[in-house]
Amino acid sequence: MKNTFGNNVSFTIFGESHGVGIGVVIDGLSPGIEVDTKYIDKLLSLRRPAGKISTSRQEADEYVIQSGVFEGKTTGTPISIFIPNSDTKSKDYSETRWLARPSHADYTANCKYHGFEDYRGGGHFSGRITAAIVAAGAIVLPALNKKGIRIGTHIKKCAGISDVDFSDKIIEEIDSLYEKNIAVLDESVAPKMEEAIIDAKNNGNSVGGILETVIIGLEAGLGEPMFDTVEGVLAHALFAVPAIKGVEFGAGFAIADMTGKEANDAFYTENGSIFTKTNTAGGINGGITNGMPIVFRCAVKPTPTLSVEQETVDMQSKKNAVLLSKGRHDPCIVHRARIVVDCITALTVADILATRYGTDWLAK
Amino acid sequence: MKNTFGNNVSFTIFGESHGVGIGVVIDGLSPGIEVDTKYIDKLLSLRRPAGKISTSRQEADEYVIQSGVFEGKTTGTPISIFIPNSDTKSKDYSETRWLARPSHADYTANCKYHGFEDYRGGGHFSGRITAAIVAAGAIVLPALNKKGIRIGTHIKKCAGISDVDFSDKIIEEIDSLYEKNIAVLDESVAPKMEEAIIDAKNNGNSVGGILETVIIGLEAGLGEPMFDTVEGVLAHALFAVPAIKGVEFGAGFAIADMTGKEANDAFYTENGSIFTKTNTAGGINGGITNGMPIVFRCAVKPTPTLSVEQETVDMQSKKNAVLLSKGRHDPCIVHRARIVVDCITALTVADILATRYGTDWLAK
Amino acid sequence: MKNTFGNNVSFTIFGESHGVGIGVVIDGLSPGIEVDTKYIDKLLSLRRPAGKISTSRQEADEYVIQSGVFEGKTTGTPISIFIPNSDTKSKDYSETRWLARPSHADYTANCKYHGFEDYRGGGHFSGRITAAIVAAGAIVLPALNKKGIRIGTHIKKCAGISDVDFSDKIIEEIDSLYEKNIAVLDESVAPKMEEAIIDAKNNGNSVGGILETVIIGLEAGLGEPMFDTVEGVLAHALFAVPAIKGVEFGAGFAIADMTGKEANDAFYTENGSIFTKTNTAGGINGGITNGMPIVFRCAVKPTPTLSVEQETVDMQSKKNAVLLSKGRHDPCIVHRARIVVDCITALTVADILATRYGTDWLAK
Amino acid sequence: MKNTFGNNVSFTIFGESHGVGIGVVIDGLSPGIEVDTKYIDKLLSLRRPAGKISTSRQEADEYVIQSGVFEGKTTGTPISIFIPNSDTKSKDYSETRWLARPSHADYTANCKYHGFEDYRGGGHFSGRITAAIVAAGAIVLPALNKKGIRIGTHIKKCAGISDVDFSDKIIEEIDSLYEKNIAVLDESVAPKMEEAIIDAKNNGNSVGGILETVIIGLEAGLGEPMFDTVEGVLAHALFAVPAIKGVEFGAGFAIADMTGKEANDAFYTENGSIFTKTNTAGGINGGITNGMPIVFRCAVKPTPTLSVEQETVDMQSKKNAVLLSKGRHDPCIVHRARIVVDCITALTVADILATRYGTDWLAK
Repeated sequence: MKNTFGNNVSFTIFGESHGVGIGVVIDGLSPGIEVDTKYIDKLLSLRRPAGKISTSRQEADEYVIQSGVFEGKTTGTPISIFIPNSDTKSKDYSETRWLARPSHADYTANCKYHGFEDYRGGGHFSGRITAAIVAAGAIVLPALNKKGIRIGTHIKKCAGISDVDFSDKIIEEIDSLYEKNIAVLDESVAPKMEEAIIDAKNNGNSVGGILETVIIGLEAGLGEPMFDTVEGVLAHALFAVPAIKGVEFGAGFAIADMTGKEANDAFYTENGSIFTKTNTAGGINGGITNGMPIVFRCAVKPTPTLSVEQETVDMQSKKNAVLLSKGRHDPCIVHRARIVVDCITALTVADILATRYGTDWLAK
Repeated sequence: MKNTFGNNVSFTIFGESHGVGIGVVIDGLSPGIEVDTKYIDKLLSLRRPAGKISTSRQEADEYVIQSGVFEGKTTGTPISIFIPNSDTKSKDYSETRWLARPSHADYTANCKYHGFEDYRGGGHFSGRITAAIVAAGAIVLPALNKKGIRIGTHIKKCAGISDVDFSDKIIEEIDSLYEKNIAVLDESVAPKMEEAIIDAKNNGNSVGGILETVIIGLEAGLGEPMFDTVEGVLAHALFAVPAIKGVEFGAGFAIADMTGKEANDAFYTENGSIFTKTNTAGGINGGITNGMPIVFRCAVKPTPTLSVEQETVDMQSKKNAVLLSKGRHDPCIVHRARIVVDCITALTVADILATRYGTDWLAK
Repeated sequence: MKNTFGNNVSFTIFGESHGVGIGVVIDGLSPGIEVDTKYIDKLLSLRRPAGKISTSRQEADEYVIQSGVFEGKTTGTPISIFIPNSDTKSKDYSETRWLARPSHADYTANCKYHGFEDYRGGGHFSGRITAAIVAAGAIVLPALNKKGIRIGTHIKKCAGISDVDFSDKIIEEIDSLYEKNIAVLDESVAPKMEEAIIDAKNNGNSVGGILETVIIGLEAGLGEPMFDTVEGVLAHALFAVPAIKGVEFGAGFAIADMTGKEANDAFYTENGSIFTKTNTAGGINGGITNGMPIVFRCAVKPTPTLSVEQETVDMQSKKNAVLLSKGRHDPCIVHRARIVVDCITALTVADILATRYGTDWLAK
Repeated sequence: MKNTFGNNVSFTIFGESHGVGIGVVIDGLSPGIEVDTKYIDKLLSLRRPAGKISTSRQEADEYVIQSGVFEGKTTGTPISIFIPNSDTKSKDYSETRWLARPSHADYTANCKYHGFEDYRGGGHFSGRITAAIVAAGAIVLPALNKKGIRIGTHIKKCAGISDVDFSDKIIEEIDSLYEKNIAVLDESVAPKMEEAIIDAKNNGNSVGGILETVIIGLEAGLGEPMFDTVEGVLAHALFAVPAIKGVEFGAGFAIADMTGKEANDAFYTENGSIFTKTNTAGGINGGITNGMPIVFRCAVKPTPTLSVEQETVDMQSKKNAVLLSKGRHDPCIVHRARIVVDCITALTVADILATRYGTDWLAK
């Protein structure tokens, strides 16, 4: 198990879906960062299941900051945040203990933990654990904003329905995303996505999508190649978000069909600053930021837990079996995952910046 | 700079394109692994430019094993491999010192290293440095093979031309790929790709593509979530390979358009072993191997250095400028990069296995 | 801040003396290790202040295991243990906020955290935080014992009074140490030490001492030089225990006065096993275990908080000042620190073993 | 094996005594640091055996900087330095292949590497490998000096003969140490030490000693507790230097016999700056620098290889045996080890500073 990530700003995740609770320890944050508990609440609410398009499990996400914050500001020592579990219905899961949900982590966790894993509700592999990432990110994001760095994720596509691209009003658009339960730029798209999700749910089915993130305000010259490229460390972190199966930067996989003449981003200068005319590279050359917006997309798979019968095996008897999941679950997590992506991105960016500028920079 | 990667098996890369040479230090490999210098030669030759579809720079890639190998076997202490540079023509680059090649690392390196970088031929950001990864991987790959683990990468697509998918004969196909300069499963595709690359070259242009990799023989239960998922650590390593802009596992981005019913991989059992009927997940659930083949794809961008005039800036004067690159360069690196992907994958897999089974396992 | 330690078994410490509480997250422990809460209680009680020779602050050390334990056993996912603070009297400290206690961390914390640190009771630098290490170690120690590995620390010297050396009955002696509040081999020494400590207390003074630790049952061949020598990683961990100012192995500093003929440990063989006649090296050659008992000593300084006036400065006004500490504090922490040394040693040894034998070994 | 050390400035060591050569890769050094090859030569000469008090093996220590330096300055990319072995007489060792030298790493290396280790001359465990640390440190030390940071080590004691303490002229004394083969403050002591070493040699014996190091010019507030205390990271690094068996800071083990009144360092202020009247803490409180000189001592054991018969075992036959070492070896390495201590300290300090101030600070 490696549940700690980051070199100079690091975060350690713990907890299980149906245990006492979940939490995070953030280490290496500069002393003196303001901690706004209302903002933490707000971001947690963006991740929380809401309405017909999510699981019926309702968690208050009331959290306790156990350390590292004093008189409303970070102290520079580890910040521990604990989120108790409240609405747990473990009996939902016990009868299907040994039936591995297809494409979920039940089987692989059983192989790795030899049956000692807390299997209830996915245990440590539950999406619930991402609430801890959100709580941590909600401390870092405002500090980045003060430095002129903004991070925003919209649902590029969900259930086959696409949102528009970021326009030139990136800052306004990013800010508005934090006010929306369905993070789309074109608001007319949201009800269509919701409808498609409800359709899937009514069929016992689920849907996935693509999240697109931009980071603006990062100076050129950040990143630590050859291995701690901006792409590499972000991808490493992002693949920790359950359900993500692909990460691409800039044009991403589409670049494979371009020629060099099409793909190259010509440089130009304006008022002594250097820009690129296009941003096929997604703001990164050679693993280092070039000052243009960082752009990446994550492929989010449809939720594996379905309300229909699925073929599987009994892990104990090693016999073929049929599973009908009765636990509460989401027909789609794309709209909930986006704030997780924002927050894990914020934590990773804070680490990249701390490496470059030192331990105190973020609060200066 | 972070030029060391890996927890228990680690590798440290150094060197510049036009300096004394490049190299690698591999640490944590089990003692007693046979080192076959002919196999290292062979894999280096697969990476080396060859014929009309590559740069005219010819490197012998004669290397020196400076430590860590004794009487033909690894000692368990760090293995240092040095590859001197020979065919360097630095004058090619000096006159364009301050002209940033679009979509190359010239500008970002200049931002990060403040002008102290060795700019000749891309310096530390040259693709040449990947020869060190290949030399290192060539020690690890045969040891993995002995354990029943095979890694193979084919050119899924290049210059718009596609190869077939892996069939049921995966082992034979993987083995055959190591005998081919153009690593495609359907050999009739190779001349078409070569033709398209030569076409691009003749137009001063370049092309990219998609590499697809399979890993077979990995037991279920490997990987160290929440952060050191198999996807996360592989992606982290892969993004260190110059030109890679996207990494996806299993169905990857296509999974975004699937429903849960389509995407889920049903489990079944046969002779007491557990398999999945499909492999949309690419052999990984919850960041942990499930015993099925690991499948991933990398998007490789077209080479940024072109033989046509490109708009850019002079980094010193901060004025707009036009660049016509005269140095030798590749019109495509997809066919050369595949062995780099195989080798960096092998090193990363060796690390995953050492974490699970300890320092000595690989040579047992 | 680096509050995470360990490569494959790691532990992350958080908390402040007068905040909500303190805690630890242990990651990488094998699944299936039995967790005996009575044993955790017992070890915590050995660290807890008791009687006239300790601070009058009384903490129940009631802890909550927040994750990673299921049905009485480790799951293999992170174990989070939280110990709420209860008996806090913060007003004791506020009036001396800016007066740096000599040889305490007040001034250096202020330099590092720029005044944002939680200064009450030493904050993150309070000895109280070591309770988290003890709770964590109490999970690991029994698992090591099952593998035949025993760790024991006695007070070699305290307030000038010396204990005897370990005799040949090491196992029995180690076991008995866990039953003693004053961990000495010769029980007649304990009351003399207590008396000397009370003497110091009555004079508003404090005393220090030397702790000596043995580890038995470790196989030859453990340790990961050149940098992760057994000495290096143990010393790194041990210096995290507040008040430790020196760490030496085997003969330690006394070896400086020996000749090679005196210092060398001759090998001999008995029943096919290899031993050394003496153990000047403390069981470690070249940073690797040689199968003999590991022996090391830690110098523990006298507690810096005194009940007499001390010269100091006001950190805010930067003027000379006189401090009379009124908070509760210990006249000696040697007798309390020994179980902390045992526990941090156990955690470090578990990491060394996990690196060598893999993630699952400890519970096998 | 863990042959890489450091978080933000790291160094990777490789090589064996009688192989092709040894070397180091330094990663994370700021771009733009001047590299003075004459200074590297000078420091290597201080480590090199000289005269009657050292081994007769003569190495020119001609090194090649293979990467990371361009036009006389660091580029910011990894610096690889290779030092070929020249004067190797491997036949000296082959006949005693299986006879473990007492208190050397022969037996433990054999346990760890299962016989695959390069046994000749101690292989990777030879003191020769420390030449790589010196070469690396010789790049960092002048950069630290420019920042007002000075590091100096004197032989506090050797073969029972003691040097004086550092006086108030610390800067001058540190500078002068780099001009001396026998690094003592009182020059009259040097010939006595040499005489004692030659005496030991004539008896086939060896001697050890104590090295004392001071670091001046470090700002208060450096270090990353709870685990990356200044003591912890320095000790971790120092125990990698062969023969070191103890590390103590400030008063070190002597503090165990002091009372708090004696041990506490009273603060006072002068011209707005804060100092301590004494420096029992060795410049570190709570693991963080307090602005006073860092002071530590290392216990160096007598060289284990002796020119007399020693009892040992044959590791292959597992029978008792007698060893008479014929290879060239040192009767004392204290005088050679001091520059190694200076250099590994410099590298570690550079890492501590890079963590605090970022990647570029050292060259600013």
